Amino acid sequence: MNPLKLTGPEVQALIQKAFPKADPDRMPKVTEAAPGRLRMVAPFQPEMLRPGGVIAGPTLMSLADTVAYAIVLAHVGEQLMAVTSTLTMHFLRGAKPGDLVADAGLLRLGARSAVCDVRIWTESPDALAAHATVAYALPAA
Amino acid sequence: MNPLKLTGPEVQALIQKAFPKADPDRMPKVTEAAPGRLRMVAPFQPEMLRPGGVIAGPTLMSLADTVAYAIVLAHVGEQLMAVTSTLTMHFLRGAKPGDLVADAGLLRLGARSAVCDVRIWTESPDALAAHATVAYALPAA
Amino acid sequence: MNPLKLTGPEVQALIQKAFPKADPDRMPKVTEAAPGRLRMVAPFQPEMLRPGGVIAGPTLMSLADTVAYAIVLAHVGEQLMAVTSTLTMHFLRGAKPGDLVADAGLLRLGARSAVCDVRIWTESPDALAAHATVAYALPAA
Amino acid sequence: MNPLKLTGPEVQALIQKAFPKADPDRMPKVTEAAPGRLRMVAPFQPEMLRPGGVIAGPTLMSLADTVAYAIVLAHVGEQLMAVTSTLTMHFLRGAKPGDLVADAGLLRLGARSAVCDVRIWTESPDALAAHATVAYALPAA
Repeated sequence: MNPLKLTGPEVQALIQKAFPKADPDRMPKVTEAAPGRLRMVAPFQPEMLRPGGVIAGPTLMSLADTVAYAIVLAHVGEQLMAVTSTLTMHFLRGAKPGDLVADAGLLRLGARSAVCDVRIWTESPDALAAHATVAYALPAA
Repeated sequence: MNPLKLTGPEVQALIQKAFPKADPDRMPKVTEAAPGRLRMVAPFQPEMLRPGGVIAGPTLMSLADTVAYAIVLAHVGEQLMAVTSTLTMHFLRGAKPGDLVADAGLLRLGARSAVCDVRIWTESPDALAAHATVAYALPAA
Repeated sequence: MNPLKLTGPEVQALIQKAFPKADPDRMPKVTEAAPGRLRMVAPFQPEMLRPGGVIAGPTLMSLADTVAYAIVLAHVGEQLMAVTSTLTMHFLRGAKPGDLVADAGLLRLGARSAVCDVRIWTESPDALAAHATVAYALPAA
Repeated sequence: MNPLKLTGPEVQALIQKAFPKADPDRMPKVTEAAPGRLRMVAPFQPEMLRPGGVIAGPTLMSLADTVAYAIVLAHVGEQLMAVTSTLTMHFLRGAKPGDLVADAGLLRLGARSAVCDVRIWTESPDALAAHATVAYALPAA
């Protein structure tokens, strides 16, 4: 099991530092962080909706990428230049309007890369809206 | 080879109808459409940049999803309720600031689903920023 | 939560029926089945190894496909013509020689498709060799 | 454009060296190699078939992995310890019995990783059986 190098609030501060122009009220928030696990919650906004009244796919993909970045930072420390190498998302059902919860689990942390999976839902963790696997490339130490 | 059911401008009109609140000046434009192929160009905007001065991953994923939607509509006609079922993106190199070109190719068009691949670049098609495969589920006729 | 339609031994019998020429001693076995979860164990064979002394990638991909098929059958009943539509595998670390354990979880079961994730390991579930997401297309009822 | 470091026959010899126990008559053969492109052909064998009379998914995944390995070796030279990091396959239509043709294209070659896409068919390149994207991790020089 990989230990945490940063607390949830420390990760939150790093992400806001990485995206200084983003509106803090709209950014997803780290609500839980533990070895191998991290949760973020993104506050619902009406602009997230697409035709059909469900949350748009790009909103889900962007959140998956952010929570993957957060769980990587939590376990490796301040490495803002970590970059996504690949992201695969399965859209499982329409995400009804509501705050978006994204649960990330660390599948592997290596010296040069990290892989995690992400589950996103608005209604219940038993009714997932999307599942993603995300790989990050880590800069050489 | 699957024939086109809609011209490029017809696809463009459908996409704007699907996203009525989007700013038309910022939306990607269909610049070429042919059987099995479709290109969109997204005008560069400074807000697309992330730390490091390259275009952010979510911008690339959103564009991949849009061009996949466009090539599906071009070949099946007006089916606004087609939904993405899975998207896999490989980030190949940092996308330098510039208009984003997204080239989609239709890999398979079936009665219930469609699969395409997408290449995205700003500098040159020989220096791809990202590659995606996208599957769409089609509503029952 | 989706209930089981078949027990583990019933799934095992179906898979052997689908692959009548396979050697039963070498086939992976269903060792656990519960709503939303299924485990198979594939007995180690020296031919599974690749250069470097770890289990070859195609062996892991084949096992991921089989356990995904098994969890789908367990939840939908006898539908031998279910077909894989997409499989994404992340290779996380070299799989040391040993029996292969594959744990599948059902992410979504719909009328026309099913999606599951799969974790494969030989040493310990805390040292995963591979993670896969697999989507299956289900024939019209 | 990345130049070739090895010819097709040199790549073929390396692959046979990496898998010394494989039957040479059944191994896929490199039939074309050019900068950024490589083709392999796998001779049809009745054992490749699955229920329904089409070629089994694991056979296609294994071939995709092999041709990806071959195109990487062709462009980086003898690095037998290159390992697959991720493989995503879309199964597009049943692969009818026949020799399998696998066309790989190099999407990116970096110092630490390579990404390629692969198209597999038996009937015609206009009727693809499968499409894959494959990423390889390269050992440090």
